Amino acid sequence: MSGLGTGGINLCAEATRSWGSYNMIRKVFPMKTHFAASAMSLLAASASAQTPAETLPDAVGSVAPALEAYSQDSLFGSVWQSEDLSVRDRSLITLAAMMTRHETEDLGDYVALALDAGVTPAEISETITHLAFYSGWGNATAAAEAAAPVYEERGVSAEDLPDVDPELLPLNEEAEASRQEHVQGTYGEVSQGVVDNTEQLLFLDLWLRPALEPRDRSLVTVAALIAAGQPEQMTFHLNRAMDNGLTQEEAGAMLSHLAFYTGWPRVFSAMPVAKDVFANRSD
Amino acid sequence: MSGLGTGGINLCAEATRSWGSYNMIRKVFPMKTHFAASAMSLLAASASAQTPAETLPDAVGSVAPALEAYSQDSLFGSVWQSEDLSVRDRSLITLAAMMTRHETEDLGDYVALALDAGVTPAEISETITHLAFYSGWGNATAAAEAAAPVYEERGVSAEDLPDVDPELLPLNEEAEASRQEHVQGTYGEVSQGVVDNTEQLLFLDLWLRPALEPRDRSLVTVAALIAAGQPEQMTFHLNRAMDNGLTQEEAGAMLSHLAFYTGWPRVFSAMPVAKDVFANRSD
Amino acid sequence: MSGLGTGGINLCAEATRSWGSYNMIRKVFPMKTHFAASAMSLLAASASAQTPAETLPDAVGSVAPALEAYSQDSLFGSVWQSEDLSVRDRSLITLAAMMTRHETEDLGDYVALALDAGVTPAEISETITHLAFYSGWGNATAAAEAAAPVYEERGVSAEDLPDVDPELLPLNEEAEASRQEHVQGTYGEVSQGVVDNTEQLLFLDLWLRPALEPRDRSLVTVAALIAAGQPEQMTFHLNRAMDNGLTQEEAGAMLSHLAFYTGWPRVFSAMPVAKDVFANRSD
Repeated sequence: MSGLGTGGINLCAEATRSWGSYNMIRKVFPMKTHFAASAMSLLAASASAQTPAETLPDAVGSVAPALEAYSQDSLFGSVWQSEDLSVRDRSLITLAAMMTRHETEDLGDYVALALDAGVTPAEISETITHLAFYSGWGNATAAAEAAAPVYEERGVSAEDLPDVDPELLPLNEEAEASRQEHVQGTYGEVSQGVVDNTEQLLFLDLWLRPALEPRDRSLVTVAALIAAGQPEQMTFHLNRAMDNGLTQEEAGAMLSHLAFYTGWPRVFSAMPVAKDVFANRSD
Repeated sequence: MSGLGTGGINLCAEATRSWGSYNMIRKVFPMKTHFAASAMSLLAASASAQTPAETLPDAVGSVAPALEAYSQDSLFGSVWQSEDLSVRDRSLITLAAMMTRHETEDLGDYVALALDAGVTPAEISETITHLAFYSGWGNATAAAEAAAPVYEERGVSAEDLPDVDPELLPLNEEAEASRQEHVQGTYGEVSQGVVDNTEQLLFLDLWLRPALEPRDRSLVTVAALIAAGQPEQMTFHLNRAMDNGLTQEEAGAMLSHLAFYTGWPRVFSAMPVAKDVFANRSD
Repeated sequence: MSGLGTGGINLCAEATRSWGSYNMIRKVFPMKTHFAASAMSLLAASASAQTPAETLPDAVGSVAPALEAYSQDSLFGSVWQSEDLSVRDRSLITLAAMMTRHETEDLGDYVALALDAGVTPAEISETITHLAFYSGWGNATAAAEAAAPVYEERGVSAEDLPDVDPELLPLNEEAEASRQEHVQGTYGEVSQGVVDNTEQLLFLDLWLRPALEPRDRSLVTVAALIAAGQPEQMTFHLNRAMDNGLTQEEAGAMLSHLAFYTGWPRVFSAMPVAKDVFANRSD
């Protein structure tokens, strides 16, 4: 991350874990106090860092003061600060949800927020690539357009981005053989093209790219499915996320977080699926 | 509403019930006739009032003349004028649907249309706040951005907007205890955060805010669910809407109206749910 | 099409069948060779023709080089060139999907692409009119706004567009009587307005308009349903598409194509429906 100008807050990994810590830093180092050069530099960077609250347009206050209050008190003041899911993960699932909903006007802010929360430019780039397949090409190309000026402003360069053709992660051959056999048997006669692309592009390539941890890849996939209103596709991916390290507490916190960004009904339709997945895993 | 410059049409409550009446006013008071100052003022306001037909971009005529004809003949000339649902309600559900679909480029027009149909600035503000929870934060903040210039142009000021912290409507404690017990029992172990926020933010707060009648709050919720393609969440809210005064005829007219704005398939997926709700209520 | 300036490639109907052929033309007539005036004119037109690859924003390369590679290699280099579905059909279903997803910023490009692939201005106009009913009025009016500058640039004029009130195609009276009886019986008491508009506007009018072949009308309807995540409405329309000439191979290729533009999960939710339709038709 060094040299990317993503804000001094990232110099301290734990500080990115919650905006409570962020606020604490600002209290301990109030802006008008004088420091040595390095501390000044840290503060200057912090001062320009994107916070969740800064994503709220001014118009909200002038049109719907109650919504502004809910935003400050509940969404930014409570949800984003809750420690059951890291700020990094929150910023990643928020970006995935906004991309999937094609809320392009705010995507740049959410890219900046993710960078400030410790998501690397490579991880955001790979999230965009991944969600091209999982939420549609146009959502991903729009996200690239929103990210480009943020990356340029922060001096992200080509070498900070994922390789086009990297060494792939090892394949779980047994699991993949089982998946492919099932899909081929079920849908081979419906669309061999879908079956082949799913195997060749997704499971033998995209999912094995190292630029995003498998756990994070599953996390943004599940967030995209909730945002798209596709709980019927969630069982496989939530299980995969938990196989790859997502805890049940984190999954529950993700649902609570996404309720705000996707609307309550999307989450209430995802809850029965999550309940079944949790129950089956604890058997 | 006085002093908000929302158009003389609102001075006459019944006139806002249908655009047939609106057209009647324009016939009775043709534009080139001279009147006393107060009548002139009324006409000037009417002349600038937003009508449904004015939401149609000019490009429709130059690219798809048949669509323009369907718009004029069927949507504006028939649906909006049908008396089974008031123009006020039509403008409110149209706004809710457009917000939910994130059709941000036209939201300003639909805010103006709602104001001209007799929805107050406070009610629109509260609809935006409400749908933050029911169709996602970004839809609501985008609606606030679209509404802000309309409010400014019409001189809507802070005192016209809902209190942030008002005296709440009385709670139906029995019904809420039953709802909360059911949700806690079903989903408490999946995401206690969702369960708690649903109780504390939605049912003990948002739904009790007086700035939008419970019947209207349910109306925009159901419209949002239809627009979002979530009929599976509609049973509870359509029942609640009808408990709060929405008639079956109005609900049927809402489906017919929304078919145009959300597409026929969204409504056809909502019809079986409405059918079941109607049947169960008549038992 | 003559006089519309839609590119010399359309002078040769078969050349529009695949971008393989398109590339072949460019190889046979390399750009720097000198020709007689008519051939030059052909080349000039080809050089400005919209290709699928040109819809990719530059930002993709600078933010997500891997996504650019997938786009070039898989989407443009393989999917669009696969001969199981014509480029014309691919451009039509892509436009339908983008419209339905309200990805308005790229719609102009996809209109241009469809014109260059041999879809006539009248067919695009009628697709927009049709999808007003099947994916919502605002999606269609936004598409008209995106198409207007493309039509103007290419000199499309009013006489190139579908009649507002044409002689209608013959009605299959038996099938329509059966459909109407079923819908009236099932939903007449829920919303007579929906039932009546479905009959009068859709099945006795829109579907009989000659400006779009019934097979193409069904094709864009099915594409819109997949893009909207409404597989539950697809059975009727996929059967109708196949009754009207869509082959099973084409339907399978459509699923494979749309996976990229709507995201894999939309297509995986549509696959079981397609499987059932195919199975029932082969019984």
